[in-house]
Amino acid sequence: MVDNMKITKKEIQKFEKLYRATLINSISGFKSANLIGTISSDVKTNLAIFSSVIHVGANPPLMGFLMRPVSVERHTYNNIKETGHFTINHINNEIFKQAHQTSASYEKGISEFDACGLIPEYTDTIKAPYVKESKVKIGLKFLEEQEIKSNGTIFIVGEIQEIILPDDIILADGFVDIEKVRTVAISGVDSYHETRKVSRLSYAKPGVEPKEI
Amino acid sequence: MVDNMKITKKEIQKFEKLYRATLINSISGFKSANLIGTISSDVKTNLAIFSSVIHVGANPPLMGFLMRPVSVERHTYNNIKETGHFTINHINNEIFKQAHQTSASYEKGISEFDACGLIPEYTDTIKAPYVKESKVKIGLKFLEEQEIKSNGTIFIVGEIQEIILPDDIILADGFVDIEKVRTVAISGVDSYHETRKVSRLSYAKPGVEPKEI
Repeated sequence: MVDNMKITKKEIQKFEKLYRATLINSISGFKSANLIGTISSDVKTNLAIFSSVIHVGANPPLMGFLMRPVSVERHTYNNIKETGHFTINHINNEIFKQAHQTSASYEKGISEFDACGLIPEYTDTIKAPYVKESKVKIGLKFLEEQEIKSNGTIFIVGEIQEIILPDDIILADGFVDIEKVRTVAISGVDSYHETRKVSRLSYAKPGVEPKEI
Repeated sequence: MVDNMKITKKEIQKFEKLYRATLINSISGFKSANLIGTISSDVKTNLAIFSSVIHVGANPPLMGFLMRPVSVERHTYNNIKETGHFTINHINNEIFKQAHQTSASYEKGISEFDACGLIPEYTDTIKAPYVKESKVKIGLKFLEEQEIKSNGTIFIVGEIQEIILPDDIILADGFVDIEKVRTVAISGVDSYHETRKVSRLSYAKPGVEPKEI
């Protein structure tokens, strides 16, 4: 029998900075693992790993992510504001090391594509590079940003312009089997996880037990 | 060799509503699986499943989630505004069916705790119920809300007041091993996944290959 411990706000404030960041980053649950690709107006590509990409809405089709605009992520932010476009690329189990490496602080002149060994590719629709090695890629148009006043982070929202993926992972009801292309999940700031499906459950109705579908 | 297919914005707009929702919900990657607990000013508890909880910052310790305030989630929203508190509770592989069932449209008078078979528990700090069966529980104070203008969803930010978890899952560097307590991940709107750690990688620096830690 393990004991539950309670960590108070006061204790959190007293933790050493890196310990606190590691702890607090771990407790939101498993996170999406994506590479965001952008290009500057003078045609320098940028690629950065994000674990905060979430679904925002289906109609219109929207996705969003949270960023710290004054950190290593500022190139991503500046490029999105310059071009109005960005790409979201799933990280799979074959490229998670390269993806992780994009979080190193490279100078503006150096592309993370070159430095980390990933290949940029383009479509006619989106003014931003996709990651060739990624299996599920989404091209987005920047729509809005909302500043989180509590800490100055920015929630960026984009509208999906196109989705590129293998045709055999979309099931008849629209569900995309991202486990089949071995998309990984992130825990904390540096832990990468594969998944194993436990169950898909039927639409929940009061008084009816959910069934496996 | 599978073929890549490209789905355009025009095609997405033409999809049947439920197909589109299922597709777009699947493509952000794996999502966190949490139950958010609240209580109304007239002491009615509420519990709702969310897959949009993300890390917002470590100092101050902040978490956030996106909600649709005019849907089944409105009880959560109203309660947070009334009491200023909410709890975030990890969904593990033993309670994912009960957690899924909280998404059914219960009347305001009915608590999802009772209807879905989960037990509320309380601390002196937080005016909101925790889920007893959850292994990692976080008590938060409401800080701010930001409306996403593009579709009227609301991003809610709370400050962590306390964290309750088994003491043997916190590693020496602060990393919380949420896989050990079998926290699940969500894909789409109804698919639940267990995880298997592939690797933790060292802090990324330019020119240095990330190492397993």
